[in-house]
Amino acid sequence: MGREDMVGTPGAGMAADIAEQPEVYARLLEPAHTEAIAHAAAVIAERRPRHVVLTARGTSDHAALYGAYLAEIRLGLPAGLASPSAVTVYGARPDLSHALVIGVSQSGGSPDLTEVVRVARESGALTLAITNNPDSPLAAAAELSVDVVAGHERAVAATKTYTAELLALLLLVESVRAGGGQPPAELAALPDLAARVLADPAAEAAAGRYRFAARLVTTGRGYAYATAREAALKLMETSYLPALAFSGADLLHGPLAMTDPDVPVLAVVGSGPGGAAMADVLARLRERKADVLTVGAKGELAVPDVDERLAPLLDILPLQRLALALALARGEDPDAPRGLKKVTSTL
Amino acid sequence: MGREDMVGTPGAGMAADIAEQPEVYARLLEPAHTEAIAHAAAVIAERRPRHVVLTARGTSDHAALYGAYLAEIRLGLPAGLASPSAVTVYGARPDLSHALVIGVSQSGGSPDLTEVVRVARESGALTLAITNNPDSPLAAAAELSVDVVAGHERAVAATKTYTAELLALLLLVESVRAGGGQPPAELAALPDLAARVLADPAAEAAAGRYRFAARLVTTGRGYAYATAREAALKLMETSYLPALAFSGADLLHGPLAMTDPDVPVLAVVGSGPGGAAMADVLARLRERKADVLTVGAKGELAVPDVDERLAPLLDILPLQRLALALALARGEDPDAPRGLKKVTSTL
Repeated sequence: MGREDMVGTPGAGMAADIAEQPEVYARLLEPAHTEAIAHAAAVIAERRPRHVVLTARGTSDHAALYGAYLAEIRLGLPAGLASPSAVTVYGARPDLSHALVIGVSQSGGSPDLTEVVRVARESGALTLAITNNPDSPLAAAAELSVDVVAGHERAVAATKTYTAELLALLLLVESVRAGGGQPPAELAALPDLAARVLADPAAEAAAGRYRFAARLVTTGRGYAYATAREAALKLMETSYLPALAFSGADLLHGPLAMTDPDVPVLAVVGSGPGGAAMADVLARLRERKADVLTVGAKGELAVPDVDERLAPLLDILPLQRLALALALARGEDPDAPRGLKKVTSTL
Repeated sequence: MGREDMVGTPGAGMAADIAEQPEVYARLLEPAHTEAIAHAAAVIAERRPRHVVLTARGTSDHAALYGAYLAEIRLGLPAGLASPSAVTVYGARPDLSHALVIGVSQSGGSPDLTEVVRVARESGALTLAITNNPDSPLAAAAELSVDVVAGHERAVAATKTYTAELLALLLLVESVRAGGGQPPAELAALPDLAARVLADPAAEAAAGRYRFAARLVTTGRGYAYATAREAALKLMETSYLPALAFSGADLLHGPLAMTDPDVPVLAVVGSGPGGAAMADVLARLRERKADVLTVGAKGELAVPDVDERLAPLLDILPLQRLALALALARGEDPDAPRGLKKVTSTL
């Protein structure tokens, strides 16, 4: 509660949101919440959807991307992200009768996502809302609803609601895998692991390196790609630093040309198959003498060594702090970014 | 043929590729090719897939995005882009027995896409390769294959193979809609319309405006979002200008904060529902006194007024020329960009 004292100090809201993430993990892992998620998972397991469609915007879109990887890898269900505008702008009415349609939104207030979920439900889809507001229009539109219980987010740039969405998706998928049962016990370590990551001052120290960077590239493969995307967005939202996120494979395809030594690269490198697949990318970057900062189990910004499917819940933490520290160093107030709105109302 | 004389002049290859697009459209619209596409479409129409999964990388990923919009809007089929790494890195084996899986690749040589298509076919998916090389591994791996007949591409940065992929996807989807029949007659006008766009020198003139730009934002909604993404990639590949593409809706969400008057915006604005949905975005950009250049039927870079689903085949043309002109103005050779490879070999 002492954190509220800092209100008014630039970045105090974002700092408090970031610091709260271990608590949010612990809360979401309480039986009351895992049981609610297991209930939704049981319905999904019973209805046996043939594919998963996720829909989201902004930060939540990166949580949805993580959810798509989980669905494909852990459930063997084809999964993809839907463009709301096909439905909301062009009036498409795709037949979703065999789909699980998941809307992810911290506010649950975006009219376009609500419309996509409403239309999907009408066409016979099993629909699920993942939000930080169980009373939101999105939650009301969906048949099933999961509350990510992140509490009020102080800053406009989303941090704890993002990681809460990740954990909710992970709990859901693991519970579907278990036929509606409890998630694996290894998840219980997440709050402590997150607290350990947040106790390390390396992220703030790293921010100094980018004080005068004119642009930045982020990259990762597999699960870590969601982290690379979210880190780029966070840097853009708070420091107005143009940050381009590429999957490692796409980076080799074309945009590698952009990474000369003047363009720093943040590479999210896991200790599993996704990290191994980054070896080539890192070697090419070294050849080009690019300035690379690695994040991950063996990274310069070190996080505990966990299964790659859990790593996104930890890897983003130092990157959020890096974004915050960089914004402050550049004289920006990340709690009140220029032109940033919490809820979009586009159709 | 006189174009070959220019080989050695920086950008001559890319200029020749760009100039050839009306011919490529005309070639792909010849009965021999539309009939081959109609044959693939007839198989698709008969098998009635329940959803569409597209997989691609780089420029072809933007063609795939266009294909996803077409499938949802014109066929009522849920469609999404798959991350190859779920399959190739993590060994996911999603059940694709009710899916149409489309691999899009100019070379057809990317091992990861070939692997995704092979695994999909094994799981019972109907598989289709769209490539510029019918003898490629990707074409061999898929049950159905469409040759986009763009001919040899001189420059490393893809232009005519991109638009050929767009037209192949459009022909395919329209033919599936017609149960394997011929595509709508209105498409016959495309070669002439493309030639008209390419005769307009406005794109080269516009390039001067960005000579000293440090970064750039592109935006569009619906079908035009694919154009915004591809324009950003082309600018990055050839001019090393960090160009960030956002759907209009996402731009309002967060990254609008980045668009101060120093960050130019290229907005692709159609004359249909997607363009109408951009009105809000343009108004907000004007409020912020952003430097906006519009591309489209009523744009400063004007293209003929066509149905929005056809517009991506025309709107990208001035943007390709803008990228070429800007690269030359900045002293770069877009035919041989630093670090750019035509085929990626990541797994």
